Amino acid sequence: MSPGDTAGASSSGDALHRFVSELYPICRSLTGEGVRRTLAAIGRHIPLDVREVPSGTRVFDWTVPLEWNIRDAYVKDRAGRKVIDFARSNLHVMGYSEPVRARVAREELDAHLFSLPDHPEWIPYRTSYYQRAWGFCVTERQRAALTDDEYEVLIDTSLEPGHLTWGECVLPGETTDEILISCHVCHPSLCNDNLSGIAVATFLARQLGQERRRHTIRVLFIPGTIGSITWLGQHEGAAAKVRHGMVLTCLGDAGAVTYKQTRRGDTPIDRAAAHVLQHAGRPFTIEPFSPWGYDERQYNSPGFDMPVGCLMRTPHGRFPEYHTSADNLDLVRPEALADSLATALAIVRVVDRDARYMNLNPKCEPQLGTRGLYGAIGGVADAPRRQMAMLWVLNLSDGHHPLLEIATRAAMPFAEVVEAADLLLQHGLLGPCETARA
Amino acid sequence: MSPGDTAGASSSGDALHRFVSELYPICRSLTGEGVRRTLAAIGRHIPLDVREVPSGTRVFDWTVPLEWNIRDAYVKDRAGRKVIDFARSNLHVMGYSEPVRARVAREELDAHLFSLPDHPEWIPYRTSYYQRAWGFCVTERQRAALTDDEYEVLIDTSLEPGHLTWGECVLPGETTDEILISCHVCHPSLCNDNLSGIAVATFLARQLGQERRRHTIRVLFIPGTIGSITWLGQHEGAAAKVRHGMVLTCLGDAGAVTYKQTRRGDTPIDRAAAHVLQHAGRPFTIEPFSPWGYDERQYNSPGFDMPVGCLMRTPHGRFPEYHTSADNLDLVRPEALADSLATALAIVRVVDRDARYMNLNPKCEPQLGTRGLYGAIGGVADAPRRQMAMLWVLNLSDGHHPLLEIATRAAMPFAEVVEAADLLLQHGLLGPCETARA
Amino acid sequence: MSPGDTAGASSSGDALHRFVSELYPICRSLTGEGVRRTLAAIGRHIPLDVREVPSGTRVFDWTVPLEWNIRDAYVKDRAGRKVIDFARSNLHVMGYSEPVRARVAREELDAHLFSLPDHPEWIPYRTSYYQRAWGFCVTERQRAALTDDEYEVLIDTSLEPGHLTWGECVLPGETTDEILISCHVCHPSLCNDNLSGIAVATFLARQLGQERRRHTIRVLFIPGTIGSITWLGQHEGAAAKVRHGMVLTCLGDAGAVTYKQTRRGDTPIDRAAAHVLQHAGRPFTIEPFSPWGYDERQYNSPGFDMPVGCLMRTPHGRFPEYHTSADNLDLVRPEALADSLATALAIVRVVDRDARYMNLNPKCEPQLGTRGLYGAIGGVADAPRRQMAMLWVLNLSDGHHPLLEIATRAAMPFAEVVEAADLLLQHGLLGPCETARA
Repeated sequence: MSPGDTAGASSSGDALHRFVSELYPICRSLTGEGVRRTLAAIGRHIPLDVREVPSGTRVFDWTVPLEWNIRDAYVKDRAGRKVIDFARSNLHVMGYSEPVRARVAREELDAHLFSLPDHPEWIPYRTSYYQRAWGFCVTERQRAALTDDEYEVLIDTSLEPGHLTWGECVLPGETTDEILISCHVCHPSLCNDNLSGIAVATFLARQLGQERRRHTIRVLFIPGTIGSITWLGQHEGAAAKVRHGMVLTCLGDAGAVTYKQTRRGDTPIDRAAAHVLQHAGRPFTIEPFSPWGYDERQYNSPGFDMPVGCLMRTPHGRFPEYHTSADNLDLVRPEALADSLATALAIVRVVDRDARYMNLNPKCEPQLGTRGLYGAIGGVADAPRRQMAMLWVLNLSDGHHPLLEIATRAAMPFAEVVEAADLLLQHGLLGPCETARA
Repeated sequence: MSPGDTAGASSSGDALHRFVSELYPICRSLTGEGVRRTLAAIGRHIPLDVREVPSGTRVFDWTVPLEWNIRDAYVKDRAGRKVIDFARSNLHVMGYSEPVRARVAREELDAHLFSLPDHPEWIPYRTSYYQRAWGFCVTERQRAALTDDEYEVLIDTSLEPGHLTWGECVLPGETTDEILISCHVCHPSLCNDNLSGIAVATFLARQLGQERRRHTIRVLFIPGTIGSITWLGQHEGAAAKVRHGMVLTCLGDAGAVTYKQTRRGDTPIDRAAAHVLQHAGRPFTIEPFSPWGYDERQYNSPGFDMPVGCLMRTPHGRFPEYHTSADNLDLVRPEALADSLATALAIVRVVDRDARYMNLNPKCEPQLGTRGLYGAIGGVADAPRRQMAMLWVLNLSDGHHPLLEIATRAAMPFAEVVEAADLLLQHGLLGPCETARA
Repeated sequence: MSPGDTAGASSSGDALHRFVSELYPICRSLTGEGVRRTLAAIGRHIPLDVREVPSGTRVFDWTVPLEWNIRDAYVKDRAGRKVIDFARSNLHVMGYSEPVRARVAREELDAHLFSLPDHPEWIPYRTSYYQRAWGFCVTERQRAALTDDEYEVLIDTSLEPGHLTWGECVLPGETTDEILISCHVCHPSLCNDNLSGIAVATFLARQLGQERRRHTIRVLFIPGTIGSITWLGQHEGAAAKVRHGMVLTCLGDAGAVTYKQTRRGDTPIDRAAAHVLQHAGRPFTIEPFSPWGYDERQYNSPGFDMPVGCLMRTPHGRFPEYHTSADNLDLVRPEALADSLATALAIVRVVDRDARYMNLNPKCEPQLGTRGLYGAIGGVADAPRRQMAMLWVLNLSDGHHPLLEIATRAAMPFAEVVEAADLLLQHGLLGPCETARA
C-alpha cells in the first residue's frame, strides 16, 4: 500500500475507523484510568510496554501532576433534573476539575461555564491541568436554558497522588538507530485530535513489525506535553539515538496532508516527507517549524533539537470542529485514515532505507550491457527508466549523495532508485558506505 | 515614533523642514566657509566636534585640495546689466571655479556655460574640484538671451591653501562598538541631495542621545568623497570598530524608501533594514550594492569593507530635479523627512539591540504557566502573540540565532520579540550571550 | 565574431556547412576506415595527432572491440533486384553487422529489419556494437514491398582484430591547465548528430590556434563512449589537468542553444556558459546534468568528476529526425552552425581569460581623474559604462571575486569588464592574483 493507492486502502480505512470508534467513549485525561484503558486497547494490536512514574516526580522544569479520575458529574436544576450530565458527554467536565459538591447561585455557576457563541450546538473542550479549578463545558443552548436562581453541582473526581502513564512499542531493527513515532493519548471523546493519531500509530507499528527494518522503531503513546517531557527526562540516552521522527495527529479529516518540518527544516525526515508528498500526486502542504502545536515542541527544544516533524491533515485550530464535540466519528473518514497511514508508512520506509553507496567502478560507466542490464541495440532515443535509474545511482554514488537525493535529482520515485541500487548491489557494481545520517 | 506612524510625525517633519530651510541659502562646497557655517548650525542641535586638516595633506591616493571661497560672481552685458548673478543663486557658479576678471567674447563665454536643454527653466549644478577651470551654470533661457558680442566676467573666488573641514558627533554607548551615520555637507542650495540627509542625521543624533544605547554612535557631517577618504585615512582605528553603518541622503522627496545594501549584502544592517521596511506596511525598495553613489563607495572599498548601507528615498539621478535648482524647498516634504527619520531610527535601534541569548532551560519548554506567563485554561486554538513570541525566543535561543533572525522566522516585528526576550530575562529563563556580530 | 553577431557569420556558416557536406558520405562507425578518412579530412584544417589502440585492450570495465569495416551490403529479391542497397545509404546496414551471405526466408529477414512506423519515409540508424548480430535499416515502404518468399542477403563486412582510432589537436597555452573540447566521430551519414559537432570543433580549434591563450586547448575527435573511456583510461594525467570542458554535438539545427551543465552544476564553465547565453539576446536553455547523452557521461563519472558541460542546439532525441536518414544536409543550417561556433568561442574565451585580481589601492577608491580615467566635471547623474566597469573591478578585486563574477554582479558583458581590468592593470591599479580555479 502506498500513498494515493486506493486498492487495499478501504479495508485498512475501515479497520482504522473501527479502532477510533472503540476508543471514542473512553474519558482520557493527562493521567488516570482512561489512559490505562486506552493503552490496554492498543496493546491488543501491538506489543506495548506500559510505564508509569509517580505524581510529584521532577522532570526538567516540570512536576508530574496528581492523578485525576472522574466517576460522575452533573448540574441539577431546582426541579432535580440533570441539565448538564457527564454521562451524556465526557467533554461536559473541564479536564482536571477538582471535586465539587455544592449549591451555587446561577451567577457563580456561570463563571464556571465554557461555551462557544459561534457554534451554539457544540460543546467545547477545556482543561485546567496546572491550576486548581472546576468547570463545565456546555452548548450555548444549554447555557441559555439556565434560568433558575440556584443549581446543585456535583463533580465526583479525585485529584490525588498517583501516576502518569504511557505506552511504548519498541520494534528492534538491524541497528540501534531509532525512528521515533509519537502521538498523544490525553484527549477524551475527540476523534481527529488524538484518536486518529493513536489509530494510525498503532497500525503503522503493526505493519512495520512485519517488515525488515534497519532502524529500531519506537512508538510512544503519551499524554501531551508532560508525557513527552517526562519521557525525554527519563530517556535522554534513547533520545540521543533518534535519527528521524514524526508526531502523528489530526490524520482523519477530509483535508489534504500537511507536513510540519523539524526545527532544522532540512533533515532527512523533512526531505523524505517532501519527496513522498511530491510523488503522491495529490495536493499537500509543507509548513516550516513553529514552536506551537504538539509534542514536536518538546522534541525540537534547543537542548534536544531532535529531527522530529509532524504529520497531519488539517492542522489543529484550522478546522472549526477542533477541540469541540463536533470532532466526532463523522469528522474522521476511513479513506483519510487509510491515506494517512500509507503516507506515514512511505515516509518511514524512505528514512529507514535511505543510504549512501560507493560506485565500485567510479571511472567511466561500467559496461552494463555485458551484465544484461542494458539494451543490446544502440541508437534508440530514450533509455528505459530502470536503466536511467541505474545510471543516476552510479553517477552520484561517491559516498556523498544518499539515494533520496539521487531520486530527487533524477525526478524519480525513491522506490525506483532503490530498486536500481539493489540491482547494482547484486551485480557487484555498488558497495556499502556508512548509513546516511542527518 | 516608528516608521509609518503619522502621530508625532508632523511636528518632527515641520522641524526637519525648518532646519533644511535654515541651511538652504548657504553656499557650501568641498571646503570653505559654507561648510563651517553649516557645521555651526548643526552644532546648535547636537554636540559636534569640528575638525580640520590642511590643504595638501596626503590621504591614501588623494591630496586634500586647496580651500575654496567665493565672495561674488557675475556676467555683465555691454549695458552693464548682470545677466548672470551669483547673488541670485549660488548654483550659478561652477564649484571650485578659479578667479576670473575679464572681458570675453560671447563664443568664449559660451564654452564656460552649463545648461539643461531638457529642463530649460532649471540651473544645473556642476563642479570642477580636481582640475582648474571656471564656469557658470544657467537656465536655457539665460543662455539664449546672451546676444552681445562681448561680456564682462567676474568670479571673485579664492583657491588657496586652507583646510578641509568636517563635523563629528560621538555619543558614547555601553560598548566601544560603533554605529556609523554619515552624510555629506558639500552641496550648495540643493535640498534633497544633501540638506535632507544633514537634517535627518542631526535629528537622529539628537534622539539617540536621549536613549540607552549599547553601541557608540558616530555621526559624520563630511564633504563627499574627499571627506570620507580623509576621515578613513585618519581614523583607521575607529573604522575598525564600526559594526553597522548607514549613509543618509535624498531623504525628503515624495518617493518610497530605498535601502541600498552593503557590499557584502547580508550584514546585520542589511537584515535590519529589510525587517524594518517589511514591517512598515508601505512600498519600499531594497537594492544591491553598487560602487556608484555616495560615501558608501569609500566605506565599502575592499580595504575597509565596512558594513555601511545607504538609506534614501528616490536615489540620486532617478529624480529629474537631481543636481539642479529644482531640488529646492518644495521638493522636500515634511512628512517624507519625518518618515525617513523614523525609519532610520528604527533600523539603528534594531542593530543596537539585536543579540543572541541562551535559553537557560533548553531541554523541553519551561513551565511558563507557573510564572504567570501562560494562560491557565488549556484547549483554546490560538496562543496569544506574546506567548508565541516567548516560545520562539526560547526555541531558537541556543546562542546561534540573534533576535532579529527569530523575529524573521516568527514573522513578528522585532519589538515584540525584544519584549518577549526581556520578559524571559526578567524571569531568569534566558541568559546573556555575546552580542550579535556580523 | 561573437554570438548573435551576423556580420561575418554567413561566411563562417557556409564554410562549416561545406565541411559537413564533405564528411557526409563517409560511412563512419566505432572503428575502421571511415573514422580514419574523417580524421584525415579534419587534419587538413588543424594540426591533428591520430592515435590508435589495438582491439582487445582493456580500459576500465571495457574492452576495445574488434575493428569493423564494410565493403558492400544488399538484399536481393527473387528477380535479382537490390531491394535494399548499402550503396544508396550507409544507414541501411546496422552498425557492426557481422558478415552474412545467405538466402533467407522472408520471415527470417524481417526479424533482422528496423523501420520507423511513425516516419515511413525515413531510415533509422541502429548499431549492435557489443553483441554479434546483423541487420538492415529500411523505410516502412521498403519493408512493405518485401513480398517474395525468399531473399538473397549479402553483408560484406569484416569484424577482426584491428584498432580503435581517434584524433587529438593540442594547442599549447601559457600554462598546462587545459580546456577540453570533445566530439564524437562514430556516426555514419548523420549531419546534426555528429557532423555539426565535428565541424564546429574543427573551426573552433582553428580560431583558437590564432589567439593568445592562457590555457592549453585539447580537442578530441573520438568514437562515442568507448572512445572517451579509452582516452580517459590512457590519459589520467591529462584528464587531471582539465579545468574546463565542453562536449560539442547537435549544433546545426534551427533550435535555440542548449547548454547542459556539468555534474557539479556550478563550475566556471557552467557560469561562463550562462553568462554568454544571457548576454547574447536570444532564447536559450540551460539544463542540469543528467547521466544520459554523450561523452560528458564519462567525463562526469564520479571517479573523474571533470567540469565538462555539453553545448547543443536541440538535444538528442528531441528532434524527430534524430538518428534517422532525415538528419541530413537540409537539417543543418549555415547560420545555426555559425552561431554555435560563435557561442562556443565566447564561452571558451571567458573561461580562458577569467581570473582574480588584487586592487593595489584597496583603501578607498584611487583617484581615477588624475590618471585620465574619470570625467573632470562633477555633478552629472550617470557614470560612463567604462568608468562603472572600472569601479566594479576595483571594488571586488580582493582576490576572491573572478572577473566573471564581477561582470555578473555588474550586469555587464564579460568583455567590458575585461577591458576595464586591462586599463587598471596598465595604470598599475590592479595586480595579478592566482588564476581563477573552480
